[in-house]
Amino acid sequence: MISFRNDYSEGAHERVLEALACTNRLQHSGYGEDEHCRAAGDRIRTLIGQPGAAVHFLSGGTQANMTVIASILRPHQGVVAADTGHIATHETGAVEATGHKVLTVSHHQGRLQAEDVHRLVEEHAADSAFEHMVQPGMVYISNTTELGTLYTRDMLHALHSVCRQKGLPLYLDGARLGYALTSEGNDLTLQDIARCCDVFTLGLTKQGGLFGEAVVIVNPALQKDFRYHIKQRGGMLAKGWLMGLQCEVLLQDDLYFKLARRAVGLALHIRDSLRGLGVAFLSDSPSNQQFPIFSQQVVDCLAQNWGFNLDQPLPGERRAIRLCTSWATREEDVEALIGDIRRLLATEGAGAAR
Amino acid sequence: MISFRNDYSEGAHERVLEALACTNRLQHSGYGEDEHCRAAGDRIRTLIGQPGAAVHFLSGGTQANMTVIASILRPHQGVVAADTGHIATHETGAVEATGHKVLTVSHHQGRLQAEDVHRLVEEHAADSAFEHMVQPGMVYISNTTELGTLYTRDMLHALHSVCRQKGLPLYLDGARLGYALTSEGNDLTLQDIARCCDVFTLGLTKQGGLFGEAVVIVNPALQKDFRYHIKQRGGMLAKGWLMGLQCEVLLQDDLYFKLARRAVGLALHIRDSLRGLGVAFLSDSPSNQQFPIFSQQVVDCLAQNWGFNLDQPLPGERRAIRLCTSWATREEDVEALIGDIRRLLATEGAGAAR
Amino acid sequence: MISFRNDYSEGAHERVLEALACTNRLQHSGYGEDEHCRAAGDRIRTLIGQPGAAVHFLSGGTQANMTVIASILRPHQGVVAADTGHIATHETGAVEATGHKVLTVSHHQGRLQAEDVHRLVEEHAADSAFEHMVQPGMVYISNTTELGTLYTRDMLHALHSVCRQKGLPLYLDGARLGYALTSEGNDLTLQDIARCCDVFTLGLTKQGGLFGEAVVIVNPALQKDFRYHIKQRGGMLAKGWLMGLQCEVLLQDDLYFKLARRAVGLALHIRDSLRGLGVAFLSDSPSNQQFPIFSQQVVDCLAQNWGFNLDQPLPGERRAIRLCTSWATREEDVEALIGDIRRLLATEGAGAAR
Amino acid sequence: MISFRNDYSEGAHERVLEALACTNRLQHSGYGEDEHCRAAGDRIRTLIGQPGAAVHFLSGGTQANMTVIASILRPHQGVVAADTGHIATHETGAVEATGHKVLTVSHHQGRLQAEDVHRLVEEHAADSAFEHMVQPGMVYISNTTELGTLYTRDMLHALHSVCRQKGLPLYLDGARLGYALTSEGNDLTLQDIARCCDVFTLGLTKQGGLFGEAVVIVNPALQKDFRYHIKQRGGMLAKGWLMGLQCEVLLQDDLYFKLARRAVGLALHIRDSLRGLGVAFLSDSPSNQQFPIFSQQVVDCLAQNWGFNLDQPLPGERRAIRLCTSWATREEDVEALIGDIRRLLATEGAGAAR
Repeated sequence: MISFRNDYSEGAHERVLEALACTNRLQHSGYGEDEHCRAAGDRIRTLIGQPGAAVHFLSGGTQANMTVIASILRPHQGVVAADTGHIATHETGAVEATGHKVLTVSHHQGRLQAEDVHRLVEEHAADSAFEHMVQPGMVYISNTTELGTLYTRDMLHALHSVCRQKGLPLYLDGARLGYALTSEGNDLTLQDIARCCDVFTLGLTKQGGLFGEAVVIVNPALQKDFRYHIKQRGGMLAKGWLMGLQCEVLLQDDLYFKLARRAVGLALHIRDSLRGLGVAFLSDSPSNQQFPIFSQQVVDCLAQNWGFNLDQPLPGERRAIRLCTSWATREEDVEALIGDIRRLLATEGAGAAR
Repeated sequence: MISFRNDYSEGAHERVLEALACTNRLQHSGYGEDEHCRAAGDRIRTLIGQPGAAVHFLSGGTQANMTVIASILRPHQGVVAADTGHIATHETGAVEATGHKVLTVSHHQGRLQAEDVHRLVEEHAADSAFEHMVQPGMVYISNTTELGTLYTRDMLHALHSVCRQKGLPLYLDGARLGYALTSEGNDLTLQDIARCCDVFTLGLTKQGGLFGEAVVIVNPALQKDFRYHIKQRGGMLAKGWLMGLQCEVLLQDDLYFKLARRAVGLALHIRDSLRGLGVAFLSDSPSNQQFPIFSQQVVDCLAQNWGFNLDQPLPGERRAIRLCTSWATREEDVEALIGDIRRLLATEGAGAAR
Repeated sequence: MISFRNDYSEGAHERVLEALACTNRLQHSGYGEDEHCRAAGDRIRTLIGQPGAAVHFLSGGTQANMTVIASILRPHQGVVAADTGHIATHETGAVEATGHKVLTVSHHQGRLQAEDVHRLVEEHAADSAFEHMVQPGMVYISNTTELGTLYTRDMLHALHSVCRQKGLPLYLDGARLGYALTSEGNDLTLQDIARCCDVFTLGLTKQGGLFGEAVVIVNPALQKDFRYHIKQRGGMLAKGWLMGLQCEVLLQDDLYFKLARRAVGLALHIRDSLRGLGVAFLSDSPSNQQFPIFSQQVVDCLAQNWGFNLDQPLPGERRAIRLCTSWATREEDVEALIGDIRRLLATEGAGAAR
Repeated sequence: MISFRNDYSEGAHERVLEALACTNRLQHSGYGEDEHCRAAGDRIRTLIGQPGAAVHFLSGGTQANMTVIASILRPHQGVVAADTGHIATHETGAVEATGHKVLTVSHHQGRLQAEDVHRLVEEHAADSAFEHMVQPGMVYISNTTELGTLYTRDMLHALHSVCRQKGLPLYLDGARLGYALTSEGNDLTLQDIARCCDVFTLGLTKQGGLFGEAVVIVNPALQKDFRYHIKQRGGMLAKGWLMGLQCEVLLQDDLYFKLARRAVGLALHIRDSLRGLGVAFLSDSPSNQQFPIFSQQVVDCLAQNWGFNLDQPLPGERRAIRLCTSWATREEDVEALIGDIRRLLATEGAGAAR
């Protein structure tokens, strides 16, 4: 059974594996203090146009989120996020386990809006007894979001502006940043992101690597002692060069972007084909995650041949599912999936017509 | 200026002060291991009909909430609460600072509903990757609630039932429990509460004492090593007998209940008088906290002579305020307040009529 | 049975109780934002000669220690303390519960030595993989120490100097500071302490008050948002003025110092009398805590008539006990205690001679 | 320059890399719920003779230690360890960051002794105010230890016995367990370890794999909800099968043990050769870590050609260094190292003789 369940079902792009094999018996310094981590960091600094940025490699995304957030906040502060934000929903309270509240506001198609951040901070300050409430201390966004949507340049600038005005560091979770930057309608560059965000990540796990995330700390005030935090939270691998090396390979010849662009193309082909069949979607996603809505019956039939994730039930016994493409998705599987859905919908339509 | 801002603006009932003076030069064991704490605990055990209950005295309400919750939950668990719950809004993330998420659901007039708890737990268990979410580990309610409303016996039984079914300890924050038990429409007794709740508190600070909360742990499985938790969280006073003694005095001759009943009576007199003047209320509170709604203009005038708390702004430039009565509220002040409001509303009505 | 077990066995000096009674029915602002806290803060600022110091009142000593320490340290930092320090031994891991290691070094008669702090910091920095170790982030001392000993001006200056050089805030736990400042051989003043320490406390609980500690934050860089920390850790009392008022009374007419001086005098009378009887002591304490050493047999006899704490067993079946005096200790009890010990030692000596 | 600095300077045994390549494009379930993790778990259960054991794969050693410890302890409890224990010295307070104190006792050649655990627990219980102290809640040991030494069967049985008697789970950090089990003088088997320990790890990172640790929870009472803890602490990799697969390969044909045995053999060859030259050692290590002691001068010369770690300075300007062998160490490098040392010592001896 072929799975469109997520974008981390396969290993790594073959060039990553080859690099691991080539360097396998060479000796490296441990804990990320090696030439590959250094070279990958240099490459990122060049790409984002920030020679002073600090780059670190951590073992995974939840690890990166909790480590970054706990390193920035003081004990009485919380992190502002959309209520669909990964840190608010699917990280088992990792942020709370470091002592901090996630201050959620309602999402807009998975996005956090600048005006909501502004209002939250104002409400906090206006309260006559504000020290009885958690102080907003930073802002978390993800791009693409958990619903596959994007931040435009205007949206990111607006967030950046309110964050600067209120003294809140802005952190962007880029577990799927490559998909965002190669999506339909994207008008952001890595340089824009580095100018607007104090810290952001470049996901490796979901974008052609085996594991790991690159944490980029643009703001010098937030760079101090970050390696202590990585070690303390358990995200520092003994063989840290493995992550630097993967990142190095993925950033050579734009492989990171090429893989993402291809995956997005396949996802949009699914989207457009399904739209052509009259299928509605949970979110208006221009990226590698698509959330088409089907009847429960179609979902059940589809599940016999294909792997995918279910989303929450919808009114009228309808159901959104998540279909993901990745660097490893095969075109023939995409076509077969679309064909199967077409047949199921036709059968359903015929049944309904009867 | 007379304040109706809260129920902790004055010291303690005089009988409490007298007891402190009488015993002042007597030597006591420290840290709550004295005869007054013991006697107060015995009195509580008798009152609630639970000879096996453990009773402890902590320095305050936030202290009690965070200590109880942190003592019960395992690291990956959270506490379920109404989104108006004190632990979710006005304790500066004290629960999160112990590592745990507060899992909020929408309140109903300040109350948490049994069906919402049920749904939350079901959703958690139904999720295909549930270990990515915080596990509901216990339930928090307050009685009276933050909006002055009550739990009826049916509501509490329903909560108790879903908690038992799902294996969740039920904790009741009783900072204003005396006011709840003496409110209009209350059909609960202390014995009911002790039967339905695994842990609850009896507030001293807001009900005639100087400071302190009594934590009553009915469920034997939750009693082990609780004194360690009190000490670790900073809630163990060297002169713990001061709290036991206060509790002892307040439970003699039903003083605790008499003081609460009188305060509720005064609050309901305000409510009924204002209702007679056509005033609307934010919540349907039968207890010592009342939330009348006025125009901003009336609120501003009123604020020149009286102390009260503002609640959130309402549509149409209207505003809810909070008026509290306590054991120390004077009848003449209540009458004067009502008189002032009557005059202000009359003037406003005349202005509007012109 | 009369107890010399500790200095918190009785209530409060009568002038404290009188002040509580006098102000009992007056209305106060809650949470420490009242005129008594303000006045007590002003009085402290004047006494210590630091008009910019922030003064807060917390419910107790462990509460104060953990709140101050957690407010200062970043997550990867620890607090340096003598291995006899209260935070290292008798606070149930309250500091660790806020996420921080207590970095202990061997004590010298209960004191932390400047050179040991220096060495610890140097060792940390010298290690080739220093981010694998907890970073020293501040220094904790207590005065008097847990063994009743004092810091001299030279010792405190030396600590201050190494702390400044290494960028470590210096925090002095003053639960028994009054006893220190009135001890035999003391050459420190409150002004000295305020000049050398970034933060210190003035104990109320053990020095004539009912409960509470005053936290004095001299260093402006550490003052920001401290009220959030107090609230979050549960140390903010609704009726905060009770602590401000007690402090106000104790600082009027030097009552705080007079009570301490009297208690120290009684303790030194015990010490000198016992020395005259040939008794050895565990530490060379010039303050209100004395640690005489007796045979187990004498200790057992003494325990039939007097309350005291046992310290660790010593070689030769000997045993140190702790005798404390306080503002409430009566001279006749001191004399009777000395008399009893004299008799027991005489009997023992006679038995040994036989 | 060839490094004997540690046992994680190279990638993974080639069979591991081959398995990664072979399975690279196959789709797997995420988060460790795949056939490789299952198969590796089954293999471990068979090897240790515990069909009911739970096996999990975490990203690294510090991650495993903090996750296991935080999952077992209640908030007021601490973990007992030797003062040389990795969790006490080189994990940046990761355990404290989860809220728990590491209760250290003096090591014996890197080992924790059963009688020291017994004494610590007794002292805690004997204290008259024991809830003021952190409660011992579990015991941590590592095998091999941080000094390269081993636990014999008798030592482990003694620890197991005191742990069972006192109700303390025993946790063995097996980051170098393969080296222990193939060391000179070892009389323990994996089955013994599984019988004596409630939880233990099998290190992959240092024993032929790229990264990851296998956590084996033998005690059923400690198995519940462990996946929540892994996720919350950031140790759950999206591509968890990568670790299961590595473990599977390493346990095929005893590769794990063969690699360890070879590395130990090389280390003992170094040891015996150096002993023959009259070199003293910091510890009596029969495993893959050796701590020879040289003059500072010899160390400086050696450092020009070889990589190694320095240990603490010793009296007489002497210095211990750490030399590690691993699965990747080459015999010719070992011989060359020994030769170099022989020459340096001869020169030094000649110099001294002159």
